[in-house]
Amino acid sequence: MTARTKAKSKSKSVAARTRGGSPEQVISRLASLAAKAVQEITAQKNPSVSIPVRTLANVTYDPKKSIIELGDQRQSRALFNVGQARKFMQTFLIASACKDLLDARKTTSIRDLYYITKHTIGDTRQNTFEEQEESDPIIEDLEVTIDSLREEMNLFASNRGAMVGDLTLVDSGDTIDLRRMGSGGWSVPSIVEDHVVQFGKCEAEMILLVEKDAVWRRLNEDKFWKKYKAILLHGQGMASRGVRRLLYRMVNELKLPLYVLVDNDPWGFYIYSVVKQGSINLAYESVRMAVPSARFVGLSSFDAEKYALPSNVSIRLDETDERRAKQMLAYPWFERKEWQRELQHMMKLGVKLELEALSSKGISFISEEYLPRKLRNKEWLA
Amino acid sequence: MTARTKAKSKSKSVAARTRGGSPEQVISRLASLAAKAVQEITAQKNPSVSIPVRTLANVTYDPKKSIIELGDQRQSRALFNVGQARKFMQTFLIASACKDLLDARKTTSIRDLYYITKHTIGDTRQNTFEEQEESDPIIEDLEVTIDSLREEMNLFASNRGAMVGDLTLVDSGDTIDLRRMGSGGWSVPSIVEDHVVQFGKCEAEMILLVEKDAVWRRLNEDKFWKKYKAILLHGQGMASRGVRRLLYRMVNELKLPLYVLVDNDPWGFYIYSVVKQGSINLAYESVRMAVPSARFVGLSSFDAEKYALPSNVSIRLDETDERRAKQMLAYPWFERKEWQRELQHMMKLGVKLELEALSSKGISFISEEYLPRKLRNKEWLA
Repeated sequence: MTARTKAKSKSKSVAARTRGGSPEQVISRLASLAAKAVQEITAQKNPSVSIPVRTLANVTYDPKKSIIELGDQRQSRALFNVGQARKFMQTFLIASACKDLLDARKTTSIRDLYYITKHTIGDTRQNTFEEQEESDPIIEDLEVTIDSLREEMNLFASNRGAMVGDLTLVDSGDTIDLRRMGSGGWSVPSIVEDHVVQFGKCEAEMILLVEKDAVWRRLNEDKFWKKYKAILLHGQGMASRGVRRLLYRMVNELKLPLYVLVDNDPWGFYIYSVVKQGSINLAYESVRMAVPSARFVGLSSFDAEKYALPSNVSIRLDETDERRAKQMLAYPWFERKEWQRELQHMMKLGVKLELEALSSKGISFISEEYLPRKLRNKEWLA
Repeated sequence: MTARTKAKSKSKSVAARTRGGSPEQVISRLASLAAKAVQEITAQKNPSVSIPVRTLANVTYDPKKSIIELGDQRQSRALFNVGQARKFMQTFLIASACKDLLDARKTTSIRDLYYITKHTIGDTRQNTFEEQEESDPIIEDLEVTIDSLREEMNLFASNRGAMVGDLTLVDSGDTIDLRRMGSGGWSVPSIVEDHVVQFGKCEAEMILLVEKDAVWRRLNEDKFWKKYKAILLHGQGMASRGVRRLLYRMVNELKLPLYVLVDNDPWGFYIYSVVKQGSINLAYESVRMAVPSARFVGLSSFDAEKYALPSNVSIRLDETDERRAKQMLAYPWFERKEWQRELQHMMKLGVKLELEALSSKGISFISEEYLPRKLRNKEWLA
């Protein structure tokens, strides 16, 4: 139904297209979309929007840059087309609501945006949107079309993750000294663009992202971040968009190396890989979120032996784990020899290990022995 | 298999048994457990522990105090009993590990505790614990037995929820000014006992707990807490143990009223009811977590009409919702006329409403109109 234009020119990377994301810049891009449609209407043409294709067919992995990217295929979405009219209308509804948000300098959730833009059309029984499942993909279309993250359009996802460390930052005008955030930490907001969060005094020499908040608490309680001059974050599982964007900004603006501490299982590896090169589903985000230099200091399949962990702390891989591990073996971003060896060893042993398994060697083993040794001996995977 | 002793005496409320929870006090209670067993062994008796029964049969609702409580039934767990020996061993393993934690003034997660206490016994192939599903109930047994929350034994659950507002507090020695926490807020830790968190300067006159972090962000961005002198928390869904314990402490120590802002659906009502009177599963916590004075300022089934919300923002109740609503009608803690009317109206309309539905009236409708009106006109349910 949708017309796709295969780009004939040599693929231009998304990075090259990346533009600033200040509210003014995003407003002007949204306004241009509308101006173009008005022009077409005035010229009695069929108004349309040209939208980059977000399917797997348009996703590529650039081994040199080491990120997953969106290619250059585009599709057209026109008003006078039975199959496209509804989506055309929805695209402009969402764009208009985002412009209102930015004009008012307010932020909101994508669920809220669904309610804001949902209404019954005239005297019909037709609603602009029936479910949020209809509005979410339109937001993603808009992100790629005007080349801005949803956060730059003042839309947020749910926030997860907390942070402490050797850094001061400013959040919405308030100075946050991450050295003095107690046991709780600063809750990482969903929108961390530079008009919201600015970095201040930083004495940290590294960033450590931890998969689990329980492990983060242990490291915080042991003041690991103080001793090793670190910024310590957790993502409560998969790193949230806010956490990933903040990591990206800290790595690039504060010039700090990033280490990722996850479980020894396919899910942990996946979390690491999304932080490092992005995900297939949201390939268009990679240029603003992926950190190709990230290093894996999570549990390795070889660690049980190396650190003499008791055998009863390992957990048998289930079918999902095995299927995921096999998939990963085939991903180009895991093709390096070290990762193949790692994944094959996991499958050979048939077991996975959680970070908590290290506690069988003592409650602070992770902060006093395991991590210092990994960092000192450069025992990481990249 | 387990011997239950039905308490014959007039039920003594758990509240009356509540004792202090400083590390020294909890250590001494754990040590007494062991001392008693050693005494019994020395006297050549069968060593045992007497544990309050945690099943529904031993749960009561006290309408005067308006909390769900554990009754006085106890069961004995003995070493020389084929059905109890394993659990007896596990109880002391967990108790001993908790004492070690408290001695070292360290905290850990219940998952970590499982790994810490898991080992293979001697030359056998028997493990002390096979799965965390085995250790978690033992922790709960221990909580009721020595009448201490797991947090008082330095065990934490995963942390959820964030907080801002007109209050200063001290967390692990760091002063946290909740008036200056930016858009992210202070991440509420899991352990908020008074040796960790102390309250400082408070100008707030109320506490507002919000179910959803997206709504919390709206209220924070609009500085609702400043205008209405409030402390603003969210629980990311069901309030976590840390959030509930903090609410309890603030209500009782700072003498503030608590308002709860949740969706208009059975799940929202349930969140409110757990905050207010506790849950059946964890009835023994109520005395230290429930806030019977809590008021419901969440969406009411009558609000769609009262606030003239468009009809297309309501969502049809599904089967689970209807079943839950029927159950709630029968709960003694929802037997007040106003709640019966509320639940019956919801079922009659056959729809539920999310807080985000208010955004159809404008993005700041909730902070500028809805909540101020509810509070001003005392339009809450209790």
